[in-house]
Amino acid sequence: MRPYVFINVAASVDGKISDEKRRQIRISCKEDMERVDLLRANSDAIMVGIGTVLSDNPHLTVKSPALREMRVQRGLSPNPLRVVVDSRARTPLNAKVLDSEAETLIAVSELASEDRIAALRKKARVFVEGKEKVDLAALMEYLYSIGIRRVMVEGGARLNHALIAKGLVDEIVVYYGSIIIGNGPTIADGPSFQPPIPLKLVEVSRVGSGVLAVWKLSYD
Amino acid sequence: MRPYVFINVAASVDGKISDEKRRQIRISCKEDMERVDLLRANSDAIMVGIGTVLSDNPHLTVKSPALREMRVQRGLSPNPLRVVVDSRARTPLNAKVLDSEAETLIAVSELASEDRIAALRKKARVFVEGKEKVDLAALMEYLYSIGIRRVMVEGGARLNHALIAKGLVDEIVVYYGSIIIGNGPTIADGPSFQPPIPLKLVEVSRVGSGVLAVWKLSYD
Repeated sequence: MRPYVFINVAASVDGKISDEKRRQIRISCKEDMERVDLLRANSDAIMVGIGTVLSDNPHLTVKSPALREMRVQRGLSPNPLRVVVDSRARTPLNAKVLDSEAETLIAVSELASEDRIAALRKKARVFVEGKEKVDLAALMEYLYSIGIRRVMVEGGARLNHALIAKGLVDEIVVYYGSIIIGNGPTIADGPSFQPPIPLKLVEVSRVGSGVLAVWKLSYD
Repeated sequence: MRPYVFINVAASVDGKISDEKRRQIRISCKEDMERVDLLRANSDAIMVGIGTVLSDNPHLTVKSPALREMRVQRGLSPNPLRVVVDSRARTPLNAKVLDSEAETLIAVSELASEDRIAALRKKARVFVEGKEKVDLAALMEYLYSIGIRRVMVEGGARLNHALIAKGLVDEIVVYYGSIIIGNGPTIADGPSFQPPIPLKLVEVSRVGSGVLAVWKLSYD
């Protein structure tokens, strides 16, 4: 058993999520950021890859006090569990994702050094599974076992690709912001899928100045 | 003066237009192909880069007999002018784009050999401008001078990027087909734009199993 897993991503019209130097670029508009905050508040865990932590240093918390309060009234913690897929345990100890505002799980592989794991354990739970890379299927099973039923994945390109490749994604929500970046990581980067992964469009609408599209994956 | 220039592109959800080996992948659905045929019929010229000719060998003609007939009744040729941006004059003489069904212009740079130009001239008009790469602004001016008012650009990634970089694109029409490819050329490939090029969303809708979005560029 695993949780329901959806990827949420903001990309340029040409599918890029940052520029060629991995610099963060403002793609979302205000309306989209409110939508993302609501998605976070309705999730049990928010997952990112180590590349995203190193380049963007995201906080991965719910921004709206009202939404945090709503979670508390439902008997939940104010923020969802933060999960970092970090095979070699490279998460900096001063990363925002390790602050005290929410709980955090760092998922590492057997490549991670004991020292790094010990240091991370002072600030987060550490899950070790997988020889060189984190075993993503095992991670999802573990998350399910601790009560996580809905996981929001917030990138980056390689984690998105790896999760799709392993058949671990149920839904992809893309916000195409009204810019062209021209080069950089995309919504999903890795080898080409052979054949391409088929999706089913379930929703499309204009949100702010961009396009919001929701696709479902089916592994039947 | 230059013609109105729009890019039409079919991409996967992750922004790829073919796979990592540049193999053509079916992205469009039937509804989208009819839409593309109509766009072609309403254009004066259809432009592609040499990479697209070499990898896809497109015909670039109007498929619908009714639409061709409509053009003839309007006093036009059955098909728009085909334009290949081909700096080194590498278009194969047996390329479909050089057949007799429509007129063709091959735009080359001063790098193109006399021999290749002479061979191409037997099957097409050849426009020479630009030192190492075709001078795209001069090409557009030339097209305008021969009566072309509306140019449809059908890729690939590098030509799209170069035209946008030169400020020669008025509109981008993207059909996001319901697949994920994972790697390959994207809607626009080149250096990251600094800053990103801002667009204005003018239309979004569901077409067949995918999403059709129309953006305008403004260079004010």
